[in-house]
Amino acid sequence: QIASAIGGLYLALTLTCMLTYWGLGMTPFEAAVHAMTTVATGGYSTSDASIGHFASPPIEWAATFFMAAGGVPFVLYLQALRGRPGLLLGDVQVRWYLLVLVGASFLLAAWLVREYGIEPFDALRSAAFTVTSITTGTGYASTDYGQWGTFPIILLFFLKCVGGCTGSTTGGIKMFRFVVLYQVARMQMTRLVQPNAVYRMTYNGRAIGEDAAISVMAFFFLFALSFTAVAGILAALGLDYLTAMSASVTALANVGPGLGPIIGPAGHFGDLPEAAKWVLSLAMLLGRLELFTVLVLCTPLFWRA
Amino acid sequence: QIASAIGGLYLALTLTCMLTYWGLGMTPFEAAVHAMTTVATGGYSTSDASIGHFASPPIEWAATFFMAAGGVPFVLYLQALRGRPGLLLGDVQVRWYLLVLVGASFLLAAWLVREYGIEPFDALRSAAFTVTSITTGTGYASTDYGQWGTFPIILLFFLKCVGGCTGSTTGGIKMFRFVVLYQVARMQMTRLVQPNAVYRMTYNGRAIGEDAAISVMAFFFLFALSFTAVAGILAALGLDYLTAMSASVTALANVGPGLGPIIGPAGHFGDLPEAAKWVLSLAMLLGRLELFTVLVLCTPLFWRA
Repeated sequence: QIASAIGGLYLALTLTCMLTYWGLGMTPFEAAVHAMTTVATGGYSTSDASIGHFASPPIEWAATFFMAAGGVPFVLYLQALRGRPGLLLGDVQVRWYLLVLVGASFLLAAWLVREYGIEPFDALRSAAFTVTSITTGTGYASTDYGQWGTFPIILLFFLKCVGGCTGSTTGGIKMFRFVVLYQVARMQMTRLVQPNAVYRMTYNGRAIGEDAAISVMAFFFLFALSFTAVAGILAALGLDYLTAMSASVTALANVGPGLGPIIGPAGHFGDLPEAAKWVLSLAMLLGRLELFTVLVLCTPLFWRA
Repeated sequence: QIASAIGGLYLALTLTCMLTYWGLGMTPFEAAVHAMTTVATGGYSTSDASIGHFASPPIEWAATFFMAAGGVPFVLYLQALRGRPGLLLGDVQVRWYLLVLVGASFLLAAWLVREYGIEPFDALRSAAFTVTSITTGTGYASTDYGQWGTFPIILLFFLKCVGGCTGSTTGGIKMFRFVVLYQVARMQMTRLVQPNAVYRMTYNGRAIGEDAAISVMAFFFLFALSFTAVAGILAALGLDYLTAMSASVTALANVGPGLGPIIGPAGHFGDLPEAAKWVLSLAMLLGRLELFTVLVLCTPLFWRA
């Protein structure tokens, strides 16, 4: 019942997005294709220039809004529609998610204004679009952000890992895990100052068990390890530092474009060696299935059980 | 008593190292300076070319040996001298440490042979020296390994984080933590296959409490977070991707040289902007004091307590 309600909601969001795109000047076909890859945070476009093809600020804002909407746990929308919007607005994961999107957008916009003298409102539009596209793992581009200089490259690199909320269509490490990791780090700090303090880690007001904390941290460690292994193999296949590092993270987090001149938003993965494509295919699978499910296949225990 | 015994042992190791260097052709002064920064895994040299200045394979091997020796927990040497060498050879941390050093050295040597046709034994010497220098955080260079191409850059980047054993003179995340992280990841895998299995995480045969596991994982998360923050700030100050990323990790792990043409083994930090030097100074302190001690100063709780 919940699954079909979520399905209906997903359909309604996609339809609204399609009508919005259509109203803003896309052809019905373009609107349908882009709507289906916006709410799904998939990122496929009918044009090599992605959303940049339309050169339309309203379309960019609309895409930003619907990509961001795709990164929220869908079940919270249902509860909001059933008269409990407090659960959506008060959800700790949603709050962190919006904080990351808004904070990173303003940081990036400030960089664009300072370094290139772009009009503040234009800078904010480009920044919000790019940050939302990367963080949710959609992978749309409105412009070649590879040309934005040093700071955006690093910022976007780390945002690729972040992802949206658990229970949404996005990939990456996901906000829920960062909330737990933050709570754990805070608990350690508290213990350092007050060794006998009883500290209760909470998530949306409910206690986080040590088991849950350990499982989140194991995921984080395996993500780092997988990232290292994939980047190392890609480098051994001849990819340069930025290409290997960003290909590894963009595949594991299911974002799409990488960074740098070869696989950045203005490039593509076509010219990479065949072997690199196999490795990246495996990495995408590994990331999409959240590591454990695939890695457990590599343990002898699984085959004995 | 243990502290003075460790002090004596440290002195004896340094003296042996000094006599070895002297015997292999360094002047007494050079031998003394380099011995003091080899066992201490400090990495200061009297020459800009570091150990490469002596162009002596035996000196390179000697330095490799004594750097590696500096990364072992000193208390285990004491126990070996007191007739319990089994504790040194059977220590899980020491085993992992040697496995990383030997494994990475052979990988790197294979790359050098395949890509540049270097003689296998020469390749192994250069590789073992560089891997040991980077992993232990010594920071010596025998050659400009920045010229070795794509794979070594990535390999050395990640080795910078690793560090030696807890209880040694090295920096970085340290082997002990990787052993615990591995145990946690293994436990999660086991639980996935056999949900009701009772899995006991062990370290040198003793059980690891959940508290200890959580504290190690909090460290790992804070290391990743500090790395992200420092790299982001450096990029905002105008440093390129490779320079910002490697400067951040080399400062936090107290290694020394970074990667790339500016701060790599053939360059120096002199030309970085003043602000970047302040940030890196803070990062070195943060890493040397193992994060928590410094970060706790930033919590309001500390000032209230």
